[in-house]
Amino acid sequence: MKKIAVDAMGGDHAPKAIVEGVNQALEAFSDIEIQLYGDENKIKPYLTATERVSIIHTDEKINSDDEPAKAVRRKKNASMVLAAKAVKEGQADAVLSAGNTGALLAAGIFVVGRIKGITRPGLLSTLPTTDGKGFDMLDLGANAESTAEHLHQYAVLGSFYAENVRGIARPRVGLLNNGTEETKGDPLRKETFALLSQEPSIHFIGNVEARDLMSGVADVVVTDGFTGNAVLKSIEGTAMGIMGQLKSAIEGGGWKAKIGYLFMKDSLRTMKKSLDYSDAGGAVLFGLNAPVVKAHGSSDAKAIFSTIRQVRLMLETQVVPKSVEKFSVVEETNE
Amino acid sequence: MKKIAVDAMGGDHAPKAIVEGVNQALEAFSDIEIQLYGDENKIKPYLTATERVSIIHTDEKINSDDEPAKAVRRKKNASMVLAAKAVKEGQADAVLSAGNTGALLAAGIFVVGRIKGITRPGLLSTLPTTDGKGFDMLDLGANAESTAEHLHQYAVLGSFYAENVRGIARPRVGLLNNGTEETKGDPLRKETFALLSQEPSIHFIGNVEARDLMSGVADVVVTDGFTGNAVLKSIEGTAMGIMGQLKSAIEGGGWKAKIGYLFMKDSLRTMKKSLDYSDAGGAVLFGLNAPVVKAHGSSDAKAIFSTIRQVRLMLETQVVPKSVEKFSVVEETNE
Repeated sequence: MKKIAVDAMGGDHAPKAIVEGVNQALEAFSDIEIQLYGDENKIKPYLTATERVSIIHTDEKINSDDEPAKAVRRKKNASMVLAAKAVKEGQADAVLSAGNTGALLAAGIFVVGRIKGITRPGLLSTLPTTDGKGFDMLDLGANAESTAEHLHQYAVLGSFYAENVRGIARPRVGLLNNGTEETKGDPLRKETFALLSQEPSIHFIGNVEARDLMSGVADVVVTDGFTGNAVLKSIEGTAMGIMGQLKSAIEGGGWKAKIGYLFMKDSLRTMKKSLDYSDAGGAVLFGLNAPVVKAHGSSDAKAIFSTIRQVRLMLETQVVPKSVEKFSVVEETNE
Repeated sequence: MKKIAVDAMGGDHAPKAIVEGVNQALEAFSDIEIQLYGDENKIKPYLTATERVSIIHTDEKINSDDEPAKAVRRKKNASMVLAAKAVKEGQADAVLSAGNTGALLAAGIFVVGRIKGITRPGLLSTLPTTDGKGFDMLDLGANAESTAEHLHQYAVLGSFYAENVRGIARPRVGLLNNGTEETKGDPLRKETFALLSQEPSIHFIGNVEARDLMSGVADVVVTDGFTGNAVLKSIEGTAMGIMGQLKSAIEGGGWKAKIGYLFMKDSLRTMKKSLDYSDAGGAVLFGLNAPVVKAHGSSDAKAIFSTIRQVRLMLETQVVPKSVEKFSVVEETNE
C-alpha cells in the first residue's frame, strides 16, 4: 500500500478541490492510502471515499502570503508541516500540497530532508510539447542561485526522473543556453557544459534554446532556478495570453466567428487539452528522501487527481530509492 | 533628410526582402534616404525606387555562422561593417541589418561606439501585449553577464525609449524577478531593486513576473541579458507552438473544423496580427551613438519596412542625442 500525505488546506480551491481529487484517486487506484491533513469539519462535507482514507485534524494552516521558512518553523501544527512530518516519521511515503510553494520547499528540505550527496534539490515539472510527449525541466525556482555543481546534479536527477517515471530510454538532456554552440553563455553555462559533457550516466545533447523547448528538442532541460522560473512563467503567460486572444477573437468576431467556433469546438478542445498543464501533474521537489510534490495553486479536482497519479507512479517506480542509491555511489567514488 | 545605412546582404531572405522593404519605405517616407550596402548585381534586380537611394557595392559579407567579433575585425569590407562605418564617419545617421546578431552588436560597439557614460549597451525590443500596446524589454542578450549597475542603466535607457519613441508618458518600469515581493530574487535583483527605487528619472513599479508580461504589467521590463534572451525565446517558441497547434487542429479536425475555419478566418487573422512581432520593428542596440537596429533574421519585406519606420522614428524623436545629453549629465554629477 502506498501511503500519501495530502495537505487538504493548500491551494485556491482548498479543501473542496483537494478532497474531490482524492475521492477520484482512491476510486481509480486500489494500491494507495490517503492521509488528509487539515480542518476535519471543512474536509468531511466533500469526502465521499470511505476506505483507505483518514483525516488528521489540525486547525493551523500556512497561508499563501506567509513568509515560507518562518511559517514552517513557527506553525508546527500546520496541515502542510504535519504532512511532511508524517513522511519523515515513516507514517507516509510521499507528501502533496497545492499550498505556498516556498513553504513546501522549506518543509521538504528541513522536514523530509535531502538525499545524501544532493546539495540543492531542484523543482522539476513535465511541460507540454506540441507532439504531446512533454519534457522535464529543472530547476524551476527552488533556488535563486545555482553553481555548475548544482546544475550537474539537476541533469543527473532529471535524466533519472524521465527514465524512471516517464519511461523514456536514454533521455536526451539539454542545457538551456542563449545559443546552441558549445562556446555560448556565461561562465556558469560554460562550466556546466564541461561537466555534463563528461558525465557518463546521462545522454547529453548540448545546449538548447528556449525557442525550441515546445517542439521537444530535449527530454530533460537543465537550468538555474532563476532562469527556469522566468522561462516557466513566460511559457504559461504566453499560452494564457494567446488562448485569451483566441477567446476574444471568437467573442468579438461577430456571427461569423461564432458559427465558426461551433464547428471548430472539438478541434479547439483537443488543442487546449494538449496544452493542459494540469494533466501532467505537479512540480516535484526532486532530490529529497521522499516524493514531495506541489500541485498548482489553482488546481481543480482533476489536477489534484493527476498529481496523485504522478505521486503514485513515483512510488511505484521507486525513483527516489534509486536516486538515493545512485548518489550514494557518487559520494563513495568522490571520497 | 534622415540617412539610413542598410546592410542589404543580411538575413534569410536577403537581398530580396531587404530591397523590397526599402522600396516600400522610400515610397512611404519622403524624409529618408537609404544607402544599400552589398552586391550591386544582386541588389539591382529588386530595386524599383530611383530617388533618395544609392548602392555602395561590396563583395564581402558576414555569414550567419561567422564568429561575430572575429568577422567584424577581419571582414573589413563586409556590407554590415561598411554600413556601420558610414555612421561612424557621419555619412549616415543610423544602421539597419537583418544579419548575424552578434556581429551587429560587435560592429555597433566597436565601430559606431558607446554613448559616454553607458557601460554596456542593451538589446531592446518592443514585444506584444494582449491589449496591443506592447512593452519594451532589455537586455535581450547583448550581454551574457550583467551587474546591478548595468541593469540600472537599462532601466533609464528603456524608460527613455518608451517615452520618446513610443510616446508613453511616465512609462511604468518593472524589474523582472521570480516574485513580486521586494525581497525576492538573487543578489543581483535585490541590488538592482535598491538602485531603481532611488532613481528619480524613472517611474519604478517594482518587481514583475514573466507570467504577466503579455498582459501589459509594465511598459518597460528590465533584466539581465541571459534571462532576457531566454524569456524572449520562450515567448516566441510558445507563440509559434500554439499557432502551430491551432493549424493542426484545423487541418486534422475534419470537415467540421475546415468549415469552422472559413467562418473564423477573419478573426484568426486579426489575432495573428496582434501577436505579430515583425510589425513592431527590430531590436535596438540601445546605448550607442546612433540607432543600430537588428531586424529579425527571417524578416520579409513588410518586417524590413516596419524596421525602417522604427529607425526613422528614432531619428525623428532624437532619442539618441537626448540619451547622450542625459548620460553626460549623469557623468558630470558623478564626477
